[in-house]
Amino acid sequence: MSTTAEYLKKLIRTVPDFPSPGILFRDITTLLKDADGLRKGVGVMLAPFAGADLDLIVGIESRGFILAAPMALQRGCGLVLIRKPGKLPAATVRQEYQLEYGSDAVEIHRDAISPGQRVLLVDDVLATGGTMAAAQQLVAGLGGQVEGISFLVELLALKGRQRLGSCRVESAIQYE
Amino acid sequence: MSTTAEYLKKLIRTVPDFPSPGILFRDITTLLKDADGLRKGVGVMLAPFAGADLDLIVGIESRGFILAAPMALQRGCGLVLIRKPGKLPAATVRQEYQLEYGSDAVEIHRDAISPGQRVLLVDDVLATGGTMAAAQQLVAGLGGQVEGISFLVELLALKGRQRLGSCRVESAIQYE
Repeated sequence: MSTTAEYLKKLIRTVPDFPSPGILFRDITTLLKDADGLRKGVGVMLAPFAGADLDLIVGIESRGFILAAPMALQRGCGLVLIRKPGKLPAATVRQEYQLEYGSDAVEIHRDAISPGQRVLLVDDVLATGGTMAAAQQLVAGLGGQVEGISFLVELLALKGRQRLGSCRVESAIQYE
Repeated sequence: MSTTAEYLKKLIRTVPDFPSPGILFRDITTLLKDADGLRKGVGVMLAPFAGADLDLIVGIESRGFILAAPMALQRGCGLVLIRKPGKLPAATVRQEYQLEYGSDAVEIHRDAISPGQRVLLVDDVLATGGTMAAAQQLVAGLGGQVEGISFLVELLALKGRQRLGSCRVESAIQYE
């Protein structure tokens, strides 16, 4: 990792046993409340895509919104939301995905993306990659072109990037 | 309203009968996906507080995050989250508040704000003001100083600002 990434990693707090016993939760709120951490985090997440033509930043509910929104502002892009079922008010498309036990789903407004628009997908943490794989399908289903995916944190042990195909996937900070 | 506010209002979509029959839902996703709308919305929400000394922007889950995060970036402030119960991983303080039927609650991390820090509270819509009044109490309970509250949309008929005391309350766009 770069020195900026090392700096950012020190701002992340690890909370044991959240949301359930045995899980080490990487808490980004301690980074966000630091003005310099927020600014540098946004910068590092955008940097790999500095040369990409982007129309929209798409954030995943709800911590993804927190990073996608300032990234959209900084890049001069629009912001699109992918949300849990029932949260978006107008006509939506839904994508289900498998969890270890059971399934979950995400939704996007049908008119959120026009065919051919170039999209950067954003979330806070890459874990198993299930939600982001569903998000890729939603964007593709609307005719959007996924130029890349940017995470603040990647949990390498869970090998989530294997579920994201040949798409360019970047993360600012990694944990084994 | 200013011409910028009129411009922004045209970007908001009204969805009837969401989330329940008889409700006219003001959908800001059509504003957010417009790069110019996002930039101008953030600018209008910050403008009344241009002269205020601010340390932190505090956003309310979850649409408040979407506006608070780019506002924090633009102002060079840190970002703090007020969330629904059970979402924040470390030690929290909780504030309950009354709904028309029943009650709800919001939480903040105990260490999110240091005594004396100057805070701007942010949410997307001012309706009855119940959630924001609870947010004010959380910030005050940690010793933070609320310099003001900024909403993108205010629903005037619900008179929410009456619940927010003598605090400076600003909204970019109003509906009767």
